[in-house]
Amino acid sequence: MEQESQMGKQVCLVFAVNGQRFQLSNVDPSMTLLEFLRTQTPFKSVKLGCGEGGCGACTVLVSKYDPLLDQVEDFTASSCLTLVCSINQCSITTSEGLGNSKVGFHPIHKRFSGFHASQCGFCTPGMCMSLFGALVNAEKAARPEPSSGYSKLTVIEAEKAIAGNLCRCTGYRPIADACKSFAADVDMEDLGFNSFWKKGERQEINLSRLPLYNHDQEICTFPAFLKRQVKASMLMDSERCSWYQPSSLEELQSLLKCPDANNGVRMKLVVGNTGMGYYKELEPYDRYIDLRYIPELSTIRRDQNGIETGAAVTISKVIEALREEIKDEFISASKLVFEKIADHMDKVASKFIRNTGSIGGNLVMAQGKHFPSDIATVLLAAGSFVHTITGTMHEKLTLEEFLKRPPLDSKSVLLSVRIPNCESIEEDGKLLFETYRAAPRPLGNALPHLNAAFLAEVSCSKSSSGNVLNSCQLAFGAFGTKHAIRAKKVEEFLTGKLLTTAVLYGATKLLKATVLPEDGTPNPAYRSSLAVGFLFDFLGQLVDSNPNGWLNGNGGLSMFEDAKSKEKHDNLDHVKFPTLLSSSKQVIQLNKDYLPIGEPITKSGSALQASGEAVYVDDIPSPGNCLYGAFIYSTKPFARVKGIKFNSKSLPVGVTSLISFKDIPKGGQNIGSIFVFGPEPLFAEELTQYAGEPIAFVLADTQKHADIAAKLAVVDYDLENLEPPILTVEEALERSSLFEIPPMLYPKQVGDLSKGMAEADHKILSAEIKLGSQYYFYMENQTALALPDEDNCMVVYSSSQCPENAQVAIAKCLGVPEHNVRVLTRRVGGGFGGKAMKAMPVATACALAAHKLQRPVRIYMNRKTDMVIAGGRHPMKITYSVGFKSNGKITALHLDILINAGITLDCSPLMPKAIVGT
Amino acid sequence: MEQESQMGKQVCLVFAVNGQRFQLSNVDPSMTLLEFLRTQTPFKSVKLGCGEGGCGACTVLVSKYDPLLDQVEDFTASSCLTLVCSINQCSITTSEGLGNSKVGFHPIHKRFSGFHASQCGFCTPGMCMSLFGALVNAEKAARPEPSSGYSKLTVIEAEKAIAGNLCRCTGYRPIADACKSFAADVDMEDLGFNSFWKKGERQEINLSRLPLYNHDQEICTFPAFLKRQVKASMLMDSERCSWYQPSSLEELQSLLKCPDANNGVRMKLVVGNTGMGYYKELEPYDRYIDLRYIPELSTIRRDQNGIETGAAVTISKVIEALREEIKDEFISASKLVFEKIADHMDKVASKFIRNTGSIGGNLVMAQGKHFPSDIATVLLAAGSFVHTITGTMHEKLTLEEFLKRPPLDSKSVLLSVRIPNCESIEEDGKLLFETYRAAPRPLGNALPHLNAAFLAEVSCSKSSSGNVLNSCQLAFGAFGTKHAIRAKKVEEFLTGKLLTTAVLYGATKLLKATVLPEDGTPNPAYRSSLAVGFLFDFLGQLVDSNPNGWLNGNGGLSMFEDAKSKEKHDNLDHVKFPTLLSSSKQVIQLNKDYLPIGEPITKSGSALQASGEAVYVDDIPSPGNCLYGAFIYSTKPFARVKGIKFNSKSLPVGVTSLISFKDIPKGGQNIGSIFVFGPEPLFAEELTQYAGEPIAFVLADTQKHADIAAKLAVVDYDLENLEPPILTVEEALERSSLFEIPPMLYPKQVGDLSKGMAEADHKILSAEIKLGSQYYFYMENQTALALPDEDNCMVVYSSSQCPENAQVAIAKCLGVPEHNVRVLTRRVGGGFGGKAMKAMPVATACALAAHKLQRPVRIYMNRKTDMVIAGGRHPMKITYSVGFKSNGKITALHLDILINAGITLDCSPLMPKAIVGT
Repeated sequence: MEQESQMGKQVCLVFAVNGQRFQLSNVDPSMTLLEFLRTQTPFKSVKLGCGEGGCGACTVLVSKYDPLLDQVEDFTASSCLTLVCSINQCSITTSEGLGNSKVGFHPIHKRFSGFHASQCGFCTPGMCMSLFGALVNAEKAARPEPSSGYSKLTVIEAEKAIAGNLCRCTGYRPIADACKSFAADVDMEDLGFNSFWKKGERQEINLSRLPLYNHDQEICTFPAFLKRQVKASMLMDSERCSWYQPSSLEELQSLLKCPDANNGVRMKLVVGNTGMGYYKELEPYDRYIDLRYIPELSTIRRDQNGIETGAAVTISKVIEALREEIKDEFISASKLVFEKIADHMDKVASKFIRNTGSIGGNLVMAQGKHFPSDIATVLLAAGSFVHTITGTMHEKLTLEEFLKRPPLDSKSVLLSVRIPNCESIEEDGKLLFETYRAAPRPLGNALPHLNAAFLAEVSCSKSSSGNVLNSCQLAFGAFGTKHAIRAKKVEEFLTGKLLTTAVLYGATKLLKATVLPEDGTPNPAYRSSLAVGFLFDFLGQLVDSNPNGWLNGNGGLSMFEDAKSKEKHDNLDHVKFPTLLSSSKQVIQLNKDYLPIGEPITKSGSALQASGEAVYVDDIPSPGNCLYGAFIYSTKPFARVKGIKFNSKSLPVGVTSLISFKDIPKGGQNIGSIFVFGPEPLFAEELTQYAGEPIAFVLADTQKHADIAAKLAVVDYDLENLEPPILTVEEALERSSLFEIPPMLYPKQVGDLSKGMAEADHKILSAEIKLGSQYYFYMENQTALALPDEDNCMVVYSSSQCPENAQVAIAKCLGVPEHNVRVLTRRVGGGFGGKAMKAMPVATACALAAHKLQRPVRIYMNRKTDMVIAGGRHPMKITYSVGFKSNGKITALHLDILINAGITLDCSPLMPKAIVGT
Repeated sequence: MEQESQMGKQVCLVFAVNGQRFQLSNVDPSMTLLEFLRTQTPFKSVKLGCGEGGCGACTVLVSKYDPLLDQVEDFTASSCLTLVCSINQCSITTSEGLGNSKVGFHPIHKRFSGFHASQCGFCTPGMCMSLFGALVNAEKAARPEPSSGYSKLTVIEAEKAIAGNLCRCTGYRPIADACKSFAADVDMEDLGFNSFWKKGERQEINLSRLPLYNHDQEICTFPAFLKRQVKASMLMDSERCSWYQPSSLEELQSLLKCPDANNGVRMKLVVGNTGMGYYKELEPYDRYIDLRYIPELSTIRRDQNGIETGAAVTISKVIEALREEIKDEFISASKLVFEKIADHMDKVASKFIRNTGSIGGNLVMAQGKHFPSDIATVLLAAGSFVHTITGTMHEKLTLEEFLKRPPLDSKSVLLSVRIPNCESIEEDGKLLFETYRAAPRPLGNALPHLNAAFLAEVSCSKSSSGNVLNSCQLAFGAFGTKHAIRAKKVEEFLTGKLLTTAVLYGATKLLKATVLPEDGTPNPAYRSSLAVGFLFDFLGQLVDSNPNGWLNGNGGLSMFEDAKSKEKHDNLDHVKFPTLLSSSKQVIQLNKDYLPIGEPITKSGSALQASGEAVYVDDIPSPGNCLYGAFIYSTKPFARVKGIKFNSKSLPVGVTSLISFKDIPKGGQNIGSIFVFGPEPLFAEELTQYAGEPIAFVLADTQKHADIAAKLAVVDYDLENLEPPILTVEEALERSSLFEIPPMLYPKQVGDLSKGMAEADHKILSAEIKLGSQYYFYMENQTALALPDEDNCMVVYSSSQCPENAQVAIAKCLGVPEHNVRVLTRRVGGGFGGKAMKAMPVATACALAAHKLQRPVRIYMNRKTDMVIAGGRHPMKITYSVGFKSNGKITALHLDILINAGITLDCSPLMPKAIVGT
């Protein structure tokens, strides 16, 4: 009540969501589209998963109208990163906008349902939007009219549409089937088990049974009223706004050099705001400057020297432009380079991120913040240039120079990037270009462990058989270095040399000394050896062979073909994979004796899940006066907690209270969860028991404010006279710090171990396996909503696999009878065990705060904190002895399972001691 | 989303509620304290009953701090009328602030509970606050210290404390007992049946069993932090506010003459805002001018000529001042007059209204708006004067002149009222003064049917035995006239006359022609004859008797005594009643055979009801995005509805939609309720069936906006070619418009009617009784909250006696299966049958709107609209024939019960046809 928003400066926006007009003033410019949709509209189909543009659960279709061309551009975007100010005059479509239970579901919803493509349903609306975005754009393409009931989409596009949308329950096969069912070139027989038809029917009959798609009568993605409005006013009035939309370089410069900028006024240059997926912002900026309306920054120019793209051009648009270049018949080395760059860029994040994130933003982050950029590495190898401006001073630099400079200051702006045409210098020289990345997911949407790109000119040796490397540009990045680098020493070593095994050996040796991850980078040896592997892969084929062998005739394409054939032995993603699934078989034998068991019955409510109308806990509208909570975790595994302060001048914005074990009422106990292993405390008391243990629960007026406050919390620890924490099973054994094993888990001897071992022909007498911890990775983060009721009663909505245990835990914590506590579970957006025990302390903390403050309290954890509280299954160490008979059958097995007390804040709050069992 | 508040101008308020600091900016100056407390704080003990200061359910304690005297003034007030802007720098205490389930209940709560003084509980928190206000002020009085466990309160004060607080379930006996248990002079034996002790114990033992009251350790009604703040800043900064607090006449005048005032800027002069209880305001004013800080308006001056009170002085303070005057030993005629005026003013509204309503406000309403004021009549008879100011022009008028003038214009202000000392003119003259009122409730808190006050000087006739009326001032008011009048002709007729029966007869004849209610006033003959009765009562005792007989010796007091003795034959309230209950007996015989049946067991949850923590439907916090509904009723009993418009330039503020029978979804039916008589429609369709029938349901962002919008709705009717409506049972019979009688209600013949009549000694062959309709008059108005859930499900909270019927009605209306509808009932704040059938359409309308709009929809009806939809039991006409045997036993009875179709908008939607039974 007391504080006024420190952010809400006057901004007036007009846009449409699902055809409905919204006009906003007083917008916090740091508000994301997701936040807006979920808190201020009924459209809750946009789900918050990772909050980083990495899972696709929040995907929406953004449509922009160009009044001059009278054209609508439609593209998908992550609403969790897109700032609501940046969608002024746009139209947003969410899954509810495609159709819903009131006006009828869209065929996308119906087919997702009928193909069994929605299980927990949390990812489904985002999937539907990705598919819809692909459909809308395919229908606009100049392609032949599809047969009735089909769209212009191709099977390959349909499969690609959902790349980047994560699903954790269903598996992608049924999802891909639902998508492919719209494709003009689909073979219905290839689609999997579904509730529409039985295998063996004719294609037409199958089609007739599918919910009808009529490609002529599609959803209007841009309502007429908004077109009129856009025509009337091209840009919003940004005066007295904290969101600026300069439409010329001059305007931009005057904004940047205004005196405020020197007075600690924090400015942020924005295009798609996708950087926030990686760089979390604790405080909103004072000013946001939207760069998308400055011609110099938003156009792509092609000339004889190469392609120059404005820094604010989205990655998708750059890819499009590069692909446009290689369309014509004429083949050149540049085309090859452009194609490889485009292919590599296609693996950067996901489609919905590339659709809004800019190339310049990527490079500026790579330069100033050491973002592990693929684009920087690839463009570095291609010898790219950048154009910057500071005041009136224009500067053109090589990308290499740019990367080496100190971060751009607040007055400087990256204007454009030039990717030059590449031509051989020597007459008989042939240009080779290849890009590489090793990442957790080969097809993209994951930051690389290391990336590389190599440009080389080779010619046949005139003196001997073999190839001479005339010149090369070897770029490496993202391996735990400040920015992408050129391996200059290796380049120099190689230049002019005949490529032999010895030379290659020398180069890799040199490279090992060049690609050196900085201290603290995980797995440095792995990364260095990856670099060697990539270089070996690139040059190995040139050793002792004739480059003309594959560059001849069709000017390089043969190498490309050749590279394709290498796929089988290489699961690194620098090679072209087959375009995802293209055909498969699914044979299910139904036993009809127990019908309808085994029948393909559509999951009840799955269409509602697809349209986003299904109500998960966080979709329940907030009651008035609701508070939002966030946990403050211990960063020390074993320490005395002396106090908690906030790392800010005053109490963080919106914060109302801080709850700790001291707030547990008389008669209550410090219990957060109850499970087979017994109760676990809700909060650390005087001593923390492990890093990641919740110490307190901070309450604020919005989830964002609570999350920020939790991050600003500084815990004052005291380690005096405390023993060092036990961090490994071995230490726990040594110091006899052991858990009781619950009787139900006592190990039982099965068979006769000595006899089995004696009989065994082959014996592995001892071996050791260590398993790290795992995050359960449900799509819906931990969440709860506690509503205090009269007479010490409490209603708690918990996304829980064990509401019955939560009820007991909450009652014990509050010190009230169990019948005073009602725990309700709605749909659970994925559980995998993580919504069993780990959902409980979340619900209990909300209930405790609601009980104390007598206000509704809710939480929707963000992915990072979710990973702390529910990091999941304990890492363990297994020692085993096995005796084999010669036929391979195990005749004796002895297992020691040690559950580790290992503590890392990255993963989970782990057991403070160690369970040792036999 | 699209509209900005048209009211929220910058006002900054600081105040405390239950010790908690609140600082508000952007306050809508028309917001009441109740609205604020219920929507923006957790303190929901303040209940909205009548919304007119007439029921006391919203009573709070207001505490003001005088930093100069370092004194806190505590008084009760109706939060439903008090504007939140007017409590700046005040401290508010609600029942939760006395105590609660968390910190422990206050003895008031515990004793209300133990004396069985809370049944539905809706009125209880207000009752507790009224008692607490009396306690706090008694404790401040200079009285001897009470015995331990008692307060300084007297039994009489304890009883009076709750005057004005209505209870509809419990009856006042247990409530009065709970209050009296705190009194220093209580006889515990007089207190009724309770759960603390059994009859027959000693007073000390009883006391020891009562929840302990410690008069030294009372609630702090004004927190220290606010005292500091008040000392620091005496007045709020009213610049750029729409709430002004001028502190001098000059400031006030400059506000009034500012040019805006001529430009349609609507200004309102405010003291306690209690006038809003009678004069509902459709639109907020542009400016509110708080008159309480202007010395000339807020002080009481006493001089030899009389008492002059500032117009902004509260009625309670005027009463106090008048009583102060009569304290000393010396007896004068003026004292008698002052005392009578004070006694009469004590019957104006309720304590909590008199505590904030001003004397000037009352007179200005009487003058300008024809408010049926008691004060105007009484002061008119006392020959009072007023002082007004217009610009710099001061004017002193008699009250009579003032009342006759046209309404004060917007530049003029009533400054003060002077009540003159009254002295006889003739040497032997004796002054008589008496006041009268006839009203639905004799002890006050009800507008009078007629009031009167008479001042007369009489002396013994010098020529004959008897009394001569030297002069008189006869004032009458509130009888359906523009303002209080002097009966000048009667005065002239009487003046100088010897009072004889003939003279009295002549005077009353003249009076009948003077007190003539205007056309349209209900029961005009009754009112005229009341006037005659009052005059007769006043003068009758003087006819043929010696005035010295009762004025002699103790200068008037004997008349006073004499008047008291008349009480027995007069239930009009111009006489002093015994000070409420003072003792009674309650003997309950317990049959112990079925213990604990019959034991005085405290109602479960009654302490929660008293502390206001009990959650009624409207206490459930509003979900985000909630809409509020209000019904639009037909004003024509039988008419075609052509359309609905709003009587405002644009859509009324906050309105989002209008729901009518056309919005009932396909598959649903126009059903609002289902009862033994079958289903009843939710809305009128093409034709209205009765006046008061709901035609539509308007939805807005707040309940206030919805209510205003419903009032602004204008229905376009068409009566062409329609028969006149049937308005009486007789017409219904004549036109054969009859209901089917449900078989369960078929009349059954009991006994042999002809035989009985034949045997009867005495026969009443036929008689007719007509009963009007009744309003059920529960304290909690009709209310519901509908929450749409996924998949066409609906959760409806309804304050209902028949949730099972509501479930069926809602399901049928929405066209969904019954299992899709959950109807929940919380505590019902009084039902009396009115929450059975009549709660249903309220719940159904909310559910229909929530279903259509997919947003939560709630309603809390105001008393006036509640009386339309739930006006209640049908008027009926009973014709009966009875035969008596001579011992009075009925031997035969014949009844015709006709339930009327009579239509009045004042009462209820009645049956459109007529049920005729035998």
